[in-house]
Amino acid sequence: MQALVIKGGGVTTPQGFKAGVAKAGIKSQDRYDLALVVSEEPAAGAAVFTTNKFAAAPVQLSKKHLAQGGFFRGFVVNSGCANACTGEKGLVDAFQMAQTAAGVIGCSPGEILVASTGVVGVDLPMEAVRRAIGEAGNRLSVEAGSLAAEAIMTTDTFAKEIALQIELDGQKVLLGGMAKGAGMIHPNMATMLALVTTDAAISPACLQEALRRANDASFNMVTVDGDTSTNDTVVVLANGRAGNPLLEDTANPGFELFCEALKEVCQALAKMIARDGEGATKLLEVQVVNAPGPEDARKAARAIAGSTLLKAALFGEDANWGRIICALGYSGARFEPDRVDVYLGGLLVARNGAGASFSEEEAGKLLAKGEIRIVVDLQAGDAAATAWGCDLSYEYVRINADYRS
Amino acid sequence: MQALVIKGGGVTTPQGFKAGVAKAGIKSQDRYDLALVVSEEPAAGAAVFTTNKFAAAPVQLSKKHLAQGGFFRGFVVNSGCANACTGEKGLVDAFQMAQTAAGVIGCSPGEILVASTGVVGVDLPMEAVRRAIGEAGNRLSVEAGSLAAEAIMTTDTFAKEIALQIELDGQKVLLGGMAKGAGMIHPNMATMLALVTTDAAISPACLQEALRRANDASFNMVTVDGDTSTNDTVVVLANGRAGNPLLEDTANPGFELFCEALKEVCQALAKMIARDGEGATKLLEVQVVNAPGPEDARKAARAIAGSTLLKAALFGEDANWGRIICALGYSGARFEPDRVDVYLGGLLVARNGAGASFSEEEAGKLLAKGEIRIVVDLQAGDAAATAWGCDLSYEYVRINADYRS
Repeated sequence: MQALVIKGGGVTTPQGFKAGVAKAGIKSQDRYDLALVVSEEPAAGAAVFTTNKFAAAPVQLSKKHLAQGGFFRGFVVNSGCANACTGEKGLVDAFQMAQTAAGVIGCSPGEILVASTGVVGVDLPMEAVRRAIGEAGNRLSVEAGSLAAEAIMTTDTFAKEIALQIELDGQKVLLGGMAKGAGMIHPNMATMLALVTTDAAISPACLQEALRRANDASFNMVTVDGDTSTNDTVVVLANGRAGNPLLEDTANPGFELFCEALKEVCQALAKMIARDGEGATKLLEVQVVNAPGPEDARKAARAIAGSTLLKAALFGEDANWGRIICALGYSGARFEPDRVDVYLGGLLVARNGAGASFSEEEAGKLLAKGEIRIVVDLQAGDAAATAWGCDLSYEYVRINADYRS
Repeated sequence: MQALVIKGGGVTTPQGFKAGVAKAGIKSQDRYDLALVVSEEPAAGAAVFTTNKFAAAPVQLSKKHLAQGGFFRGFVVNSGCANACTGEKGLVDAFQMAQTAAGVIGCSPGEILVASTGVVGVDLPMEAVRRAIGEAGNRLSVEAGSLAAEAIMTTDTFAKEIALQIELDGQKVLLGGMAKGAGMIHPNMATMLALVTTDAAISPACLQEALRRANDASFNMVTVDGDTSTNDTVVVLANGRAGNPLLEDTANPGFELFCEALKEVCQALAKMIARDGEGATKLLEVQVVNAPGPEDARKAARAIAGSTLLKAALFGEDANWGRIICALGYSGARFEPDRVDVYLGGLLVARNGAGASFSEEEAGKLLAKGEIRIVVDLQAGDAAATAWGCDLSYEYVRINADYRS
């Protein structure tokens, strides 16, 4: 597939989407902390949410709205407060966010999906939030797409956006995405939020299946610190403006093309999240190849990318391949220890489960790079998986030692 | 039970045990890095080992020796090199350690248990190791017990020893233990080694059952960084010198007494390991009470004690109870989110799954202490479990960024 990256693109790149932002002053006064993304017409919606038992109020509400209908007009999101562990009041507040956004757009509250990210256990300042939703709704524009990506940031150091163009049945179709990540990023999601918009015409059921596949190969393969949050949400909205023949059958070849493009968008955002892990100085990519089954490959890749000891070694640019082997050993994946080869950026560092002789100088050069690629060959089948992570630095500790203040 | 702590006691406190140490120069020249602990007569042996698929050569050998017979004369251990991922040569080297120790003591190699800890993927300098075993064997004494606890240290900052006295059927029985921990400490063990000696008379089968119970409530409830190593080993040797009637039936009331004492020894060592977690400034104790079942309590306690985000918050003395709730939420334990109460050192910080109003000043005082106790009440049954951990500091990163050099 030739997906074309649209430079500087984001959630308002697909036709018929606009965004608006405002300063609600939730955690700090002088930044955008509320965003509203609106589709001019009802868009098929799909989403995946955190598996944490303490699902935040907006997660509970959005799940309910998704269960009630497949089409949506808007997505409203705030940073600075997670609206999690906030009891009945939290549920009322999340509903009021949907209701206020619906009032501004002119639709029903059930056509709005809601997300929040920030500190757990604190109530939203609802008067300010309602005012900010009104302001954001009055300033909707295509240009504000990048501001929306900024407004959802918490400890992120850069806004995460991407847009792609593909062709479906001769029609130009656009996909755009934004995400926030930083801490608590782990397989099965974490305090990460992502919104993907597209002007593709696709049924809600097909969209949900495409998201399931894309999410499994992207956000669920990222780990920053192993914690899974109360608020993780990935939403996709597809408004059909591109005019391609409706994708409503997963057997349609166009569906595979769309899945590939959605996966590409999600993987690009997932890698940005890993690269921007709290305090991260390096992006880590772990490929596990020749595994007996896909689940073995996934388990192994995620365990290695998530090993605290390996992450600290990478920060120190130490070619401690024993920690790769060690994480593989407790991953639960099936393999024979004496058949495992490990490569560090193309350099063979362990063969058949034991150390290979390699140049420490060459390894040091590879580890000094901003992107480190580890390949683990299990020689036990033909399944493969890729996971992303980052190193563990002093800065991670500093950021998280006093997040609330 | 009134177990009496023997001040300054360790593995040579029980009758009939001696230790010897030597400098093999494995990683650094000027420290004891090899220890031999010997029982004057054959001792019933039991052990638990790492679940990592890359079990180190000494683990493989000791497992084999345990499968072949229940009685042992000695335990030989080195620090500085894990003898893991070392292929066939590693197995030969581990056997040579047993063979050399057996030669010095005058027993068969199968009566020796072997352990190693240190860097993975590096071969042992066998000539130096054989010489050191000889030296250690020629210097066996009761006084060298504490030196043995020093010899097994890697990044540990203090030696870990304990000894207790109990009474079984009117006979004074002694138990002594040493351990090393620091990094890679996690439920299901990690690069931690422990040796417990006792002069109790107990059958190998009863000893194994007692160790299983003690281990589940101690070493398996400690987490430092979530990594499980290739070399974890806990060995218990019981030589019967105390002269109590042989414990060979788990229905014997004396067996329960012995189990309690062994658990006390193992918990004391486990807490020392948590307190000495790499870079740790605080010991964290997490008690989960009123859980629906023991496994729920264990899962919840371990997830909370192991949360990287919570550990960083504790280092920063930040009363971020949302991170406790969050870890509980992904622990896999069964509970109702809106019935969970959380206490921080006796202070109620969350009630029914939502924030309680509490004094930040009081919380700050509790968090400034060297020991922090978190109690989570699930209000869902009557099972309980305790886990131990530590905070995550800059020092952890520094230590692990360049462990090999």
